Amino acid sequence: MEKVTLQEKLALFSDHWNPRIVGELNGQHVKLAKFKGQFVWHQHEQEDELFLVVEGKFKMEFRDKTVDLQAGEFLIVPRGVEHRPVADEEVSVLLFEPASTVNTGNVTSQLTRSTLHKI
Amino acid sequence: MEKVTLQEKLALFSDHWNPRIVGELNGQHVKLAKFKGQFVWHQHEQEDELFLVVEGKFKMEFRDKTVDLQAGEFLIVPRGVEHRPVADEEVSVLLFEPASTVNTGNVTSQLTRSTLHKI
Repeated sequence: MEKVTLQEKLALFSDHWNPRIVGELNGQHVKLAKFKGQFVWHQHEQEDELFLVVEGKFKMEFRDKTVDLQAGEFLIVPRGVEHRPVADEEVSVLLFEPASTVNTGNVTSQLTRSTLHKI
Repeated sequence: MEKVTLQEKLALFSDHWNPRIVGELNGQHVKLAKFKGQFVWHQHEQEDELFLVVEGKFKMEFRDKTVDLQAGEFLIVPRGVEHRPVADEEVSVLLFEPASTVNTGNVTSQLTRSTLHKI
């Protein structure tokens, strides 16, 4: 039972779209990721996803609207809903989602990360 | 699909030890609570709990150690582990835990909140 300091964990990596696992509870993972640029459109068949901005800002695009998110704000994307995160500048995000969640959901691309590191 | 701004939600209540539900995903609840003073010793038989400090600081006491937590830090308390949060000054905390979680776990006291409000 050790506490996790978000800024300390974020200092351990610099690549984008490659979430790290920083906690596990009740079959869910807590992850930290850095986004920059456009991700791929995708959805998750079985998993709802929470995105909490730690530092910076980004846009979550849906097919019919866009939600702007900044530090101290979170958004829950329900399963089955297509979405695409877009970050004009680097943003640090905390994710809370089932351990089974793959970042690109139903899509396989060069951005897919099937094996995540625990830090 | 509306974003949640933590500070806006925190401005909606001022009582202590009475978590509000601010999100739900995968059978889990996202809650916000304000702590001040000493809570009761308790444990959760079936639920792991995550405490992320949004503003302020508090101590999580265990029978054999104490963990100090401040803004930007989180701690996961595994099921079955007795704990007691203590806040010398008011602290705002985000909780992730199964929807089934009752705040005082295996103990019933005047601090027990069996029905939580969604804000």
